[in-house]
Parts: sequence; C-alpha cells; structure tokens
Amino acid sequence: MPASIALVTRLQPQAEQTWLAILRAAMPNETIAVIDEIEEGDLRHVDIAIVANPDPADLRRLPGVRWIHSLWAGVERLVMELGAFSCPIVRLVDPKLSETMAEAVLAWTYYISRDMPAYAAQQRQRQWRQLPYRAAGDTRVGILGLGALGTAAAERLAMAGFRVNGWSRREKSIPGIETRTGAAGLKQLLRQSDIVVCLLPLTADTAGLLGREEFALLPAGAGFANFARAQIVETSELIRALDEGRLKHAVLDVFETEPLGSDDPRWIHPDITVLPHISAPTNPSTAALIVATAVHDYRVSAVVPAGIDFSRGY
Amino acid sequence: MPASIALVTRLQPQAEQTWLAILRAAMPNETIAVIDEIEEGDLRHVDIAIVANPDPADLRRLPGVRWIHSLWAGVERLVMELGAFSCPIVRLVDPKLSETMAEAVLAWTYYISRDMPAYAAQQRQRQWRQLPYRAAGDTRVGILGLGALGTAAAERLAMAGFRVNGWSRREKSIPGIETRTGAAGLKQLLRQSDIVVCLLPLTADTAGLLGREEFALLPAGAGFANFARAQIVETSELIRALDEGRLKHAVLDVFETEPLGSDDPRWIHPDITVLPHISAPTNPSTAALIVATAVHDYRVSAVVPAGIDFSRGY
Repeated sequence: MPASIALVTRLQPQAEQTWLAILRAAMPNETIAVIDEIEEGDLRHVDIAIVANPDPADLRRLPGVRWIHSLWAGVERLVMELGAFSCPIVRLVDPKLSETMAEAVLAWTYYISRDMPAYAAQQRQRQWRQLPYRAAGDTRVGILGLGALGTAAAERLAMAGFRVNGWSRREKSIPGIETRTGAAGLKQLLRQSDIVVCLLPLTADTAGLLGREEFALLPAGAGFANFARAQIVETSELIRALDEGRLKHAVLDVFETEPLGSDDPRWIHPDITVLPHISAPTNPSTAALIVATAVHDYRVSAVVPAGIDFSRGY
Repeated sequence: MPASIALVTRLQPQAEQTWLAILRAAMPNETIAVIDEIEEGDLRHVDIAIVANPDPADLRRLPGVRWIHSLWAGVERLVMELGAFSCPIVRLVDPKLSETMAEAVLAWTYYISRDMPAYAAQQRQRQWRQLPYRAAGDTRVGILGLGALGTAAAERLAMAGFRVNGWSRREKSIPGIETRTGAAGLKQLLRQSDIVVCLLPLTADTAGLLGREEFALLPAGAGFANFARAQIVETSELIRALDEGRLKHAVLDVFETEPLGSDDPRWIHPDITVLPHISAPTNPSTAALIVATAVHDYRVSAVVPAGIDFSRGY
C-alpha cells in the first residue's frame, strides 16, 4: 500500500529514522514513509505530511496533502519559507514540553536570582564574599509570552513563590499572575521585573522587540533569559546593557544561527551564559502520541484540523 | 535598672550592635545589654543570655543565668566549648530559616541536576554540546538529616517533582518521602541517590560519617551538596571520588574554618563549587521574634524552656 503519510525533514538521517520508527509505532494502522523513499508515482497518495524543518520544495512534491503536522513548537521558519502554501500547519503543543520548559525556566531563574554566575566568578578569584540575598518572594519575574510554554512557566514560578508578571499580545487571565498587554503593558512589566524571561514566538511583531529602550526600562541589576528566539532581542543592545552594568546577567539558550559560531563575542562575555539550546528538547514519545491523535481524529472525522494563523505567524 | 538579659557574642562590634537594637525592639519590656557594657556588680542580675558564638569565659561571668538562647541553628561548637555548663541551651528553630534553606537546597539541586557547572565549563571551551537531560521526576535526591531544615528541604524538592529519599538518626514519617534510618538505611539511600544533600547536625555520630565507603556507594556520576557542617565529610575522600570521576560535582557551602583559606585545594577543583556559607542566613527580624516569644513565655510561666540534649549534641 502506498504511503499516505510522508515524513519530510532536514534532520540527520539517523534522527530522521528514529522519528520514523517512533511515529510508525504510534500509528500502526498508517503507512508512513520518509518522502525520499516514496516512489514518484505514489507521492499523490500522501494526504498528511509530518515535518521537522522541511525543505519547502519537498512539500510542493505532495499535490494531495491536506494538512501538515510539525514536530516542533516553533514554526516561524516554516511560515516564512512556505509563504503562500495554503494547507493548514499544525504545530506541536505538547503539555509535556510545557512542563519541561517550565522546569528549565525555574532552574535558570534560580541560577540568576541566587547569583550563581557571580559566585562562580568569586570562586575563580578565591574570594569569600556573601552577596545580598533576595528570597523568591521578593523577586519579581516578568514572563514575555503567555502561550502554552509561557503560561506553564509563569505558573511554575508562582508556585515556587516568585512574584510573577506576564505579558502577551492578546489579553490572558492566569490565576495568581498579573498579566498585561500592548506597548504600555510591556513598558510597565519591564520597569517592574528583577528578572525577565522571554518565551515569545518570533513574528513580524516580536522581531527586534527588545532593544535599547526596553533594556533601559529594567531596574538596575536585573537579569534576563531568552528561551524563545534570538531575533526577538537586539543582541548589540543586550551586550551594551550588560557592559554598562545596568543588566547583571543574561542566560541565552537561542541564537540566530546554531551552533553559535566560535568567534561570537557572547561565548566570552563574563555576564552571558551561553546554553546550546537545551531548555525544552522535544520528547519523541509524547510528540508522536500527539501527532497520532491528530491523525486519528482526521481519519475518523475527515475534518482538516485547524492550523496556525499565517497572519499572526503562530 | 540593671540588665536581666545579656547579649554574649564574638561577632564584629557592628553586627553585635545591630542584633542588640533588633532584640531591644522585639522586647521593649526587657533590659538587654551587651555583656561588656554591664557593670561587674550587676552581672549577677542577668538570668537569660542570648548568644551567637559566645566566649565560654563570658558565660561563666553570669552566675545567675538560668538559660541561654542561641541566635544560630547550629550549636555544636557551643556544646563542645561549654561542656559541663549546666543550664539549658535553646537553639534557633526558625520556620522562616527552614523555608530559606529549602529554597537554597532546591536552587542548588537544580544547579547540579541541570549540569550548570558542566555547561559553564563547555562555554569556556566554546563547546556547543547538549548534555543528556534528566527531568526532576527521573532524579532521585537523598536528604541526610530530617530535622526542621531537612524536612522542609525534602518537602520542597518533592513539590518540585524530584524523587526524594530521606535519612535520619531517629525514624521520621514525612508524606511523599521515603525515609530510612540506621547504618543499613544510610547505605540503601546512598545507593539510590543521584544527588545527595547533607543537612545533618554535627555530632559525635555524624563527624566523618561520609568517607570512602559511603562515596563509593553512590551511583556513577552522582552529585553532592553539603549545607550542614564540613566535618561530617572526609574531604580527602570526597576529592578522591571527584577525581576518579565517580562523583560528578560537589557544592560545598560549609568548611572546617571559614572563610576558606586561600590555599585550600577546593577553591580550584574543577568539580567543586565553593560557596561562602550562604544557604540560610539568619533573618534577624524573625529570629528576634522567636527569642522574644521564648523570653515572654519564661517571664509568664517561670518555667525554664527545654534546651538541646547535650548527649545527642542538638
């Protein structure tokens, strides 16, 4: 039977084969194949594409495809590259991923709030000095972006006793968390955050959102963490704010190109922690189950699932 | 009116005066003075001593003292130095202190479990490498000592999703936490802990408790943190376990003498994080209220409060 589901990725062959095996195990009733392993004449039978950083040219080889499921939560590259491609794209919304990200945000918020980088620097100088201690209950954390990941992170921080504010494009209501929206709301949040954590999607609206003016609004000695997309931040302005001592420390998990080039100044900046995009690895098992559920619902109902909103970009 | 409460410390004068002011504010009906400011003939009127690392010779100058309240949670030095001194010593048990310690334990447990020292080392090499991720729910933390601090820390870790085991001298029952006791229980806990956190009191029984045999029981790549007293650990054996790669990393907040001498090898060990005794600073405001309550109860009831058990040492 020709494949009805094509796996379309630009992953390493081994990673692609691992995904194929896991997806097949999750959907034993479906015929799934990597697009390059499907005969040319059979490509028209494919009605669903499962993708991870796909080549748009590959997707155009699938005339019968009705919808696409991404294995990744971030889809801004897909939106940009596919442009006028008209079928719905479903992005991965994995509650398990939200939990993983929320834990990463909590852990790295403690890293900043408990002055772990400063204590490491002191140790290198053999310096015994107790830095002022600020309890979680006296530490204000501002979360930018209140989608599934941002909401889970905000709730997790609030549960740990931090004072949490959140900002999102659309109004949100989350118990125990003060939420804001709009340009004025962003300024207000920045003025009142000891630590800012970025979990926004990258869209035309958020590209370059955090620049000189925004970093200037933060209280002196604030910390910053970016677990979303590098392009949301004007890197030169972030570095300037660190160099001028207005910002204490930045944790960066995302970069314009990854891996980060070895000559990038962020590697050696004393107030920047460079992480190799570790905050929320996709869990293949839970992701495959989520995709399988969407495929099953479609087979039963024949209703194409709602995809992302191309005009918003997520 | 001659002082009835003497403040006896070996703190810096400024710190001593700060304590004096806070204690006086918390007990406006009492006459409190630093022992050196009390006239020789009036020392006999003192019936309560409030102490922080006191010189035993000073305490012997107070013939009428009925009981002593320490401003610190750790009193092993007091016990050792006072020896046969017969009046009860009350140590500080501050719920706020437990909360502060619990937060420190959670933060530095993340530091170990999220491989923060390893990522810092990679950054120095400009190395982009994702280390295997282990969620809190797959990470077993063993807490040594289930007093007020250990129990609060265990509960906090369990709330954050870690799998928590606890060990204490006497049997304890804490919901959601597997507890053990005795020599066999200690071995069992060590074998089943990915991270061990020491919160034991220093007593004759716990001095040198963790040595070669104990570190050998830990699973390969385990982490260790000591927030209690340095003397509980055989430092040379800890360093050996790190050097042989059996232990991944150690966070040390306590040392035999503090500040740690600048020629101590722990400062420069790549797998040791040296902290300047920061985990749980006494909060003077809440501590003063606790002491004030004990003093008030004594004035009303004339019953000398129960002190620490000298035979146990805490």
